[in-house]
Amino acid sequence: MKNTALTQFRDTGTLYLSAPEAAELVRRLGLPHCLQHMAQHIRADFLRWADFDKTARVAAHSKDGVIELMPVADDHRYSFKYVNGHPGNTRFGMSTVMAFGVLADVDTGAPLFLSELTLTTALRTAAMSALAAQTLARPDSRVMALIGNGAQSEFQALAFQHLVGITCLRVYDVDPAASAKLVANLQGSGLHITVCQSTAEAVKGADIVTTVTADKAMALILTPEMMEPGMHLNAVGGDCPGKTELHGDILDAAKVFVEYEPQSRVEGEIQHQPADFAVTELWQVLRGERAGRDSAEQVTVFDSVGFALEDFSALRFMMDSAVRLGMGERIALIPQLADPKNLFGMLAAPVSVSARLEQIATTAQ
Amino acid sequence: MKNTALTQFRDTGTLYLSAPEAAELVRRLGLPHCLQHMAQHIRADFLRWADFDKTARVAAHSKDGVIELMPVADDHRYSFKYVNGHPGNTRFGMSTVMAFGVLADVDTGAPLFLSELTLTTALRTAAMSALAAQTLARPDSRVMALIGNGAQSEFQALAFQHLVGITCLRVYDVDPAASAKLVANLQGSGLHITVCQSTAEAVKGADIVTTVTADKAMALILTPEMMEPGMHLNAVGGDCPGKTELHGDILDAAKVFVEYEPQSRVEGEIQHQPADFAVTELWQVLRGERAGRDSAEQVTVFDSVGFALEDFSALRFMMDSAVRLGMGERIALIPQLADPKNLFGMLAAPVSVSARLEQIATTAQ
Repeated sequence: MKNTALTQFRDTGTLYLSAPEAAELVRRLGLPHCLQHMAQHIRADFLRWADFDKTARVAAHSKDGVIELMPVADDHRYSFKYVNGHPGNTRFGMSTVMAFGVLADVDTGAPLFLSELTLTTALRTAAMSALAAQTLARPDSRVMALIGNGAQSEFQALAFQHLVGITCLRVYDVDPAASAKLVANLQGSGLHITVCQSTAEAVKGADIVTTVTADKAMALILTPEMMEPGMHLNAVGGDCPGKTELHGDILDAAKVFVEYEPQSRVEGEIQHQPADFAVTELWQVLRGERAGRDSAEQVTVFDSVGFALEDFSALRFMMDSAVRLGMGERIALIPQLADPKNLFGMLAAPVSVSARLEQIATTAQ
Repeated sequence: MKNTALTQFRDTGTLYLSAPEAAELVRRLGLPHCLQHMAQHIRADFLRWADFDKTARVAAHSKDGVIELMPVADDHRYSFKYVNGHPGNTRFGMSTVMAFGVLADVDTGAPLFLSELTLTTALRTAAMSALAAQTLARPDSRVMALIGNGAQSEFQALAFQHLVGITCLRVYDVDPAASAKLVANLQGSGLHITVCQSTAEAVKGADIVTTVTADKAMALILTPEMMEPGMHLNAVGGDCPGKTELHGDILDAAKVFVEYEPQSRVEGEIQHQPADFAVTELWQVLRGERAGRDSAEQVTVFDSVGFALEDFSALRFMMDSAVRLGMGERIALIPQLADPKNLFGMLAAPVSVSARLEQIATTAQ
């Protein structure tokens, strides 16, 4: 596969998957299939955690938001994601989070695959959450509270339905229109959905609580009195310095799992906890090296911030799927040179028929 | 301009300039024009050095090469470049260096412009070298030695001809085929070119010495006995840890200028000098805050490694030019959502006519 991808790059350029094509790819394969396979790709990559060159993301903060680059690599493939976070964007009719990324060949540096990652990030985040819950939640979990019904909420709902076995959703958002949108989008999904009037009402009796709120600095979405024995908390919305969703006492009383500890200490729910606050990296649980949930009564927390390796896995899945389905188009992001030592040579001759015709037309005038 | 670019992004997507189109753009405007304007853009950005959020590049090293991300931002624009360095790539018919990059809007995170940067990097590096020489070389410089006649050499030659006033080139490469390629490419340029048999022969009597060799770890391209009073050295090829071109004694006897000191201490010719070795950042000279050349006899060295801000300037120039010439194409790298809070909605309907027809065909079967 690896050499095939490189040969295709050399012969025809970088494979590019646009946002509309990514959506079409997901429709063709089906969202449950994509969530399932993305979770499998993430699991496979997390199981070989030590193979990866990991770095915390590189962030450029400004007054209205942040732009981040998230690179990661193993011996064969390199990936990075560009992603922004600008809570005010919806005022301009733009998404809060926009993303794209590249999968490249480590041996040559060739950018094999350029893809939209706005939609894909929503899928991989949901797949990651479901993978963590498969490992950490009680196996008999059927009821999930979903707090925050924004852009990511439906993906979380369907990932937990298809990968974890959730049948009942109890949803709440400060904006009733968001919940109404979720209900409309999930019509026909088979999920039994109850719209609640408060977080406390939604959380009551839930086996799993997913928080995926945005836009709120140091919000206290979940407080200790809402907790019930054996709950699994999937805390997705707290993902940058100053942005958290859980009361500190919840973390103190629970067993907390993270993706990549150095990044989570800065960005996650645990950012307000002491530096020696005990956490377990999820890959250790997946590999059977450390325990997950210790008892049916324990409260577990997946303090998710999103790690570059998940995008690496997602890009692998999207590229393999696009190649298999013959989707995407080849683009000349990198020059195809007859002689790679002669870069200047590409200025010598017109490269396109249209340019040549234009030149002829100009000469004829 | 700024709001126009954002409006165009919202209405029609990211502007994409492929490698063939970048070459066409350079042909249309003329290489001298592009070099001139790129140098002006770099100068303008270097003059407002303090406005930029600067970081050293993020590198992923592997056994055959390196892949780097180079981000930089001011209050309005953010850019990053992806660039690799794999000296063995020419064996596979691929370029040693391949690059692309993005210019984004800081207020919203929108990726306004995606461009090839393989060709563009060669132009911006040459423009940067010429800008430094305009500032540091003796004004009466007419003869340049050009050591290393690879992919970047012609761009350096033409930048120094058109921006610095060089009329005579003395070229040398360990590979005679490289020099022959350079001579062929520069036929009709008006430059008087002498192919030499050694570095020493080429350097003798030169006003400016440009070294742009590749592939050699800790090479000693220039040695102290080759130096003549008043020379300006444009050291381009030494640009990563373990890759240098100048003998340390040359640096000790000369006045050394760099782009961004923290990066140059690691990557530049000065990587082997003590941590307190005196250097001057070029922006300080451009702003008149520190002296350039102190006398006609002094040897000056521009220890160039390539800094993210030069790519920022280059991306600005290429985007403005592409917009002005109506070049490039708009791509849907980011979803255009009717309701930005409803990302899930993009999965609801087929997005293309072909997909719709396919669906109809499938249903009809």
